[in-house]
Amino acid sequence: MIGGGLNAFIGAIHRLAAIMDGRVELVCGCFSSHPEVSFSTGKSLFLPKNRVYMTWQEMIEKEAALPEGERMDFVSIVTPNHVHYGPAMMALENGFHVVLDKPFTFTLEEALKLREKVRESGLLLALTHTYTGYPAVKQARDMVARGMLGKIRKVYVEYPQGWLSEKVEDRGNIQASWRTDPSRSGKAGCMGDIGTHAHHLAEYVTGLRTTEICADLATFVPGRLLDDDGAALLRFDNGATGVLMASQIAAGEENALKIRVYGEKGGLEWAQQEPNSLVLKWLDKPMEVYRTGTGFMHPVAAAHTRTPGGHPEGYLEAFANIYRNFALTLMARLDGADPKPEWLDFPGPDDGVRGMQFIDTVVKAGTSHTSKWVKMG
Amino acid sequence: MIGGGLNAFIGAIHRLAAIMDGRVELVCGCFSSHPEVSFSTGKSLFLPKNRVYMTWQEMIEKEAALPEGERMDFVSIVTPNHVHYGPAMMALENGFHVVLDKPFTFTLEEALKLREKVRESGLLLALTHTYTGYPAVKQARDMVARGMLGKIRKVYVEYPQGWLSEKVEDRGNIQASWRTDPSRSGKAGCMGDIGTHAHHLAEYVTGLRTTEICADLATFVPGRLLDDDGAALLRFDNGATGVLMASQIAAGEENALKIRVYGEKGGLEWAQQEPNSLVLKWLDKPMEVYRTGTGFMHPVAAAHTRTPGGHPEGYLEAFANIYRNFALTLMARLDGADPKPEWLDFPGPDDGVRGMQFIDTVVKAGTSHTSKWVKMG
Amino acid sequence: MIGGGLNAFIGAIHRLAAIMDGRVELVCGCFSSHPEVSFSTGKSLFLPKNRVYMTWQEMIEKEAALPEGERMDFVSIVTPNHVHYGPAMMALENGFHVVLDKPFTFTLEEALKLREKVRESGLLLALTHTYTGYPAVKQARDMVARGMLGKIRKVYVEYPQGWLSEKVEDRGNIQASWRTDPSRSGKAGCMGDIGTHAHHLAEYVTGLRTTEICADLATFVPGRLLDDDGAALLRFDNGATGVLMASQIAAGEENALKIRVYGEKGGLEWAQQEPNSLVLKWLDKPMEVYRTGTGFMHPVAAAHTRTPGGHPEGYLEAFANIYRNFALTLMARLDGADPKPEWLDFPGPDDGVRGMQFIDTVVKAGTSHTSKWVKMG
Amino acid sequence: MIGGGLNAFIGAIHRLAAIMDGRVELVCGCFSSHPEVSFSTGKSLFLPKNRVYMTWQEMIEKEAALPEGERMDFVSIVTPNHVHYGPAMMALENGFHVVLDKPFTFTLEEALKLREKVRESGLLLALTHTYTGYPAVKQARDMVARGMLGKIRKVYVEYPQGWLSEKVEDRGNIQASWRTDPSRSGKAGCMGDIGTHAHHLAEYVTGLRTTEICADLATFVPGRLLDDDGAALLRFDNGATGVLMASQIAAGEENALKIRVYGEKGGLEWAQQEPNSLVLKWLDKPMEVYRTGTGFMHPVAAAHTRTPGGHPEGYLEAFANIYRNFALTLMARLDGADPKPEWLDFPGPDDGVRGMQFIDTVVKAGTSHTSKWVKMG
Repeated sequence: MIGGGLNAFIGAIHRLAAIMDGRVELVCGCFSSHPEVSFSTGKSLFLPKNRVYMTWQEMIEKEAALPEGERMDFVSIVTPNHVHYGPAMMALENGFHVVLDKPFTFTLEEALKLREKVRESGLLLALTHTYTGYPAVKQARDMVARGMLGKIRKVYVEYPQGWLSEKVEDRGNIQASWRTDPSRSGKAGCMGDIGTHAHHLAEYVTGLRTTEICADLATFVPGRLLDDDGAALLRFDNGATGVLMASQIAAGEENALKIRVYGEKGGLEWAQQEPNSLVLKWLDKPMEVYRTGTGFMHPVAAAHTRTPGGHPEGYLEAFANIYRNFALTLMARLDGADPKPEWLDFPGPDDGVRGMQFIDTVVKAGTSHTSKWVKMG
Repeated sequence: MIGGGLNAFIGAIHRLAAIMDGRVELVCGCFSSHPEVSFSTGKSLFLPKNRVYMTWQEMIEKEAALPEGERMDFVSIVTPNHVHYGPAMMALENGFHVVLDKPFTFTLEEALKLREKVRESGLLLALTHTYTGYPAVKQARDMVARGMLGKIRKVYVEYPQGWLSEKVEDRGNIQASWRTDPSRSGKAGCMGDIGTHAHHLAEYVTGLRTTEICADLATFVPGRLLDDDGAALLRFDNGATGVLMASQIAAGEENALKIRVYGEKGGLEWAQQEPNSLVLKWLDKPMEVYRTGTGFMHPVAAAHTRTPGGHPEGYLEAFANIYRNFALTLMARLDGADPKPEWLDFPGPDDGVRGMQFIDTVVKAGTSHTSKWVKMG
Repeated sequence: MIGGGLNAFIGAIHRLAAIMDGRVELVCGCFSSHPEVSFSTGKSLFLPKNRVYMTWQEMIEKEAALPEGERMDFVSIVTPNHVHYGPAMMALENGFHVVLDKPFTFTLEEALKLREKVRESGLLLALTHTYTGYPAVKQARDMVARGMLGKIRKVYVEYPQGWLSEKVEDRGNIQASWRTDPSRSGKAGCMGDIGTHAHHLAEYVTGLRTTEICADLATFVPGRLLDDDGAALLRFDNGATGVLMASQIAAGEENALKIRVYGEKGGLEWAQQEPNSLVLKWLDKPMEVYRTGTGFMHPVAAAHTRTPGGHPEGYLEAFANIYRNFALTLMARLDGADPKPEWLDFPGPDDGVRGMQFIDTVVKAGTSHTSKWVKMG
Repeated sequence: MIGGGLNAFIGAIHRLAAIMDGRVELVCGCFSSHPEVSFSTGKSLFLPKNRVYMTWQEMIEKEAALPEGERMDFVSIVTPNHVHYGPAMMALENGFHVVLDKPFTFTLEEALKLREKVRESGLLLALTHTYTGYPAVKQARDMVARGMLGKIRKVYVEYPQGWLSEKVEDRGNIQASWRTDPSRSGKAGCMGDIGTHAHHLAEYVTGLRTTEICADLATFVPGRLLDDDGAALLRFDNGATGVLMASQIAAGEENALKIRVYGEKGGLEWAQQEPNSLVLKWLDKPMEVYRTGTGFMHPVAAAHTRTPGGHPEGYLEAFANIYRNFALTLMARLDGADPKPEWLDFPGPDDGVRGMQFIDTVVKAGTSHTSKWVKMG
């Protein structure tokens, strides 16, 4: 693992998610740019001292030099955005598969180059868009794909959070600090951090591609350098339209990602904070609630559930689904076998490029006062 | 009453709402442009035959000629939009107060003239923006006005319906028929019918004024002549931004008007389909749920509630609050007394003009592919 | 109307409910045992002075002496329980139909005599068990009756309130005062006031009859003279079992009546505080939510709804359904016509007797420490 | 691990929960009474062949013979109830700590002996009453313990499931098969399987002890040998009363464990299917919702949460909290250190004995038609 020192948020989540299903073991790490943090993190994780490294360059180099079977199989990169491209490229160059936290890279240019490298290398790269790991989301996607809602007309996707309502980046909040810093986060704040999740969810569930964006981005907290709020009107390749709302100044909200999709025959609704229910509303029959773990879920959703109905699963299990699918795909490949189709499903370089295109487009649209629609992709 | 023949939707609602509190009595009517419908409606409502009229012109004229104390005190106009201005003007000219269904008029020009006439005449005019009659909405407005949420930054208001998902106007649905017909509905379909409610709610709760709108309107059902879906980005006069979503092709949705408002200190959420709860989310304390009828509501909300907590009130009671406040204000005026301030609260000509400005602006913004922001008002 | 002076709770509710549908008009009243309260109430309700009476005896007598067409058609009795039997009997004896607030009478003996009198007189008597007036409750009953849930096995009905958590009867709360006073309320407190509603709802929805009760009643507030909390195990005539919970010391609860019924094929759930949804859970398909006003409701439910889906109705509309059905039945009878079957549905003397039997049984069971089951009826 | 072969439900859950926090590793197992199942399970879990055993006796014996540091630290027993006591006793006798699935034992006699052995041995024993591992439950317990609700008066605890609505034990459902078999499950079916969870939750949250039980148990599915449904009236040692409902024939229900507790000042409500919210209702202020992961939770709840607010945790995390606390306590003991007080919290032998007392008492009460109250403990 690269990044994820003690007190970092997402690194600990990655570790929980990775090991949940007993198929991944942490064997080495460079957990921080501060060697002492890296070493104390490694120690607390029971790693042998010689597998904790000073720099990610050192780690990749030395791991590559270890005998097969002893060296790491893949590397998880959980650093701030500006340290995605470098380690990912070097890992691929050294023959390591990669799990990468989103957004894919710092810039769209990096994204295109990194995708090219993945293709060229034939290695696997998983991008942790956690929310599409939820079984109810996979059910939603499957129902849309089967045409159960009819042709899709309307998408509402929203992601309100409130944790940046005050200038917490000045009060020692490490998460806030790099996420509001253009030199580490990239050209978008809120839209890069959570807007990309919302956008990925919308394209994932509907199978549609955004073609044009009209947006309004804002920075509400004085002195903040990146957007902390925004909304976008979307147009999709089948003629559907949509609205994407993301905010980190929606005071009092936690992590309220939610999607609604309406087709000619009905609509669906899923809210991340109560993730085990998928609500279906129909023109020709009463509202239905599909619940994960019950016998009514489609096979693809069932394959991503560990517990029976009424035993709620949550964020960590959704995250673990990405690691599990990545690990199963990798193991199948190592065995020369074909993984089951339902395991193949994890976000990868194409999703990464879409995300960076979204950031580019929404920032361009959201900061222009005159031009209304900006084409995407 | 003008309009509201048997089988009309909103006329029956007006009658229920008007008489609920025992302060209004239906004394005459011209319920339809078809005299036989008007007469059969009048009969079913136990009206004497001589108080049911062939035309609204006849009604206003003959009622005006009746002795005071015998003639109607005010007229409710519940006709399609193109028959608002005419009867309202004639009523005012003949000294009758008016209750008018929204939107105010057919065009903005009519709206400005009608407001002028109201001012000039000194008579009362109530506009039935039902949803701001709910006690929890009044509580929300009061909490914002007292600064409890801090300076407002963000407004989400949404109004998804699904009843126009198919071309029901061709299948004998009377409501759909006139609401999708530009010659009776005006220049907006969905935005005029329900977008105006959403916009009124947003301005009512926040006390802010929209200054600019960027929008995307669409007609999804082939052959329909007016918008049946749309979304708008809003900018308010205090620097807040907002999103307004209205759709009548959100298949499976009923009447899901909902508003969320976020300020510097917290946010509020109210959904019309469960109208007795107002959710408050705070930066510095746990989420709260204010429930109508309980002792925790502010006086202004309490004054608009008929039952104790846990005895749910609904749409008809909200509608009746407008009639009640109108009637109490009227009675106070007739008595030469000042009505209590909390009774004074019902939408009037200024709200009507705002609504017509909203329609004008959102249609202009929503149909332009090039100019992004259109100023409102 | 007998009872229902200003500041009384249920009298005002009766008046709102009675007039809602425009078929009932208040023509006279004796609103209080204090003549000055009665007269001021009458005045505030715009009644002519000569139709406001000093005593209910005077009212029934004088009204009976008025010419037909001028005198009241029926009398609503909304007094405390100890003043139900007297005026109801006298009204029936004088040929007046009766609407009576629940519980039916003060004692079971009175109940049996009053039912006998209703039968003998051929007059109508409606008992205002409000909650079975809700359309979703009628839908539930209809679904059970059609066998959609299969044979019923289990019933949970609960009615937690918190308003008697403190000794408010000593602090001027008039409602609390008579409801906790055995000389005015009868032998049960909580069980008489709200337990009877819960019991009526259970028998109404399931169509079953309770045969045995095992109970535990308690008085939690020191010095209170009647039960303020209780729970009962129920056995039904088809072998189903049930649990009935009623409490007025469930601090913080409003009026949280709720019923769940499970059969061999599925279960249903309805909660009075969100009365427009009926949840169905099935063994063989996903959960469904039936919503009032939508096209998916059965005709019997649709006949008790005034507004389309998503326009919530509430407690007053449920209450008004009882008055409406009573009025329509009465009008049909006056016209010599048969009322439509769906109008015939309002609680009457049989329900009244069941309620008094329930009170008798649950009090006997709930206060015995040794005998477990007490037969009912 | 003893038990938990492939296809067993709770064994897989134990493994997920045990390893979640990276402090427990599976080193050996006897996963089934069928050796071939045991071996294939072991293989699929990547265990070395020599650590997979034919019988649990062999496993304990051989593991005890391994050198310290190599042998297992503790054993998880996840077998049906009739195989709890034997392996637990033998493990303790051989110096192994124990994690045991609930209920504690097959009979109360075994329970008392096993508790005695734990005390005598000085070893640790954790009982996996999963539901009290949820952070919101710990918050609830803490709020009650601090007196925030005032003296507790009323407890409602309910646990409806529907999975035994049909005779699935005859159709190859392994879970159903042993749970409905008195020779493997013990004297109670539904009450042993889930009633014990509900009872543990009630005593855990309130800190009260049940003193008397009045109950009605039933078997609805013809031919079934144990209760599949029941309800009990409870009396607690402080004068509070309660109702416990458990059913496995509540058709359509998943795993709907829920508790409500009311004191003199307010009430709380927690439902396992949406476990990240704790609802508080108050006499003197609006309803509050405490959400896990937010800054408003008490330290004891915060210590049992892995993710920030709005990133839902679920059943596996609650389960893992028991393993984590057990492991931390064990590690602290091995290090000679005192574990932090908040880690010490996991169910143990006393809870196990309470559970068996509950089963004994509720079965005795629930099957008697004459004696009402049965004393517990």
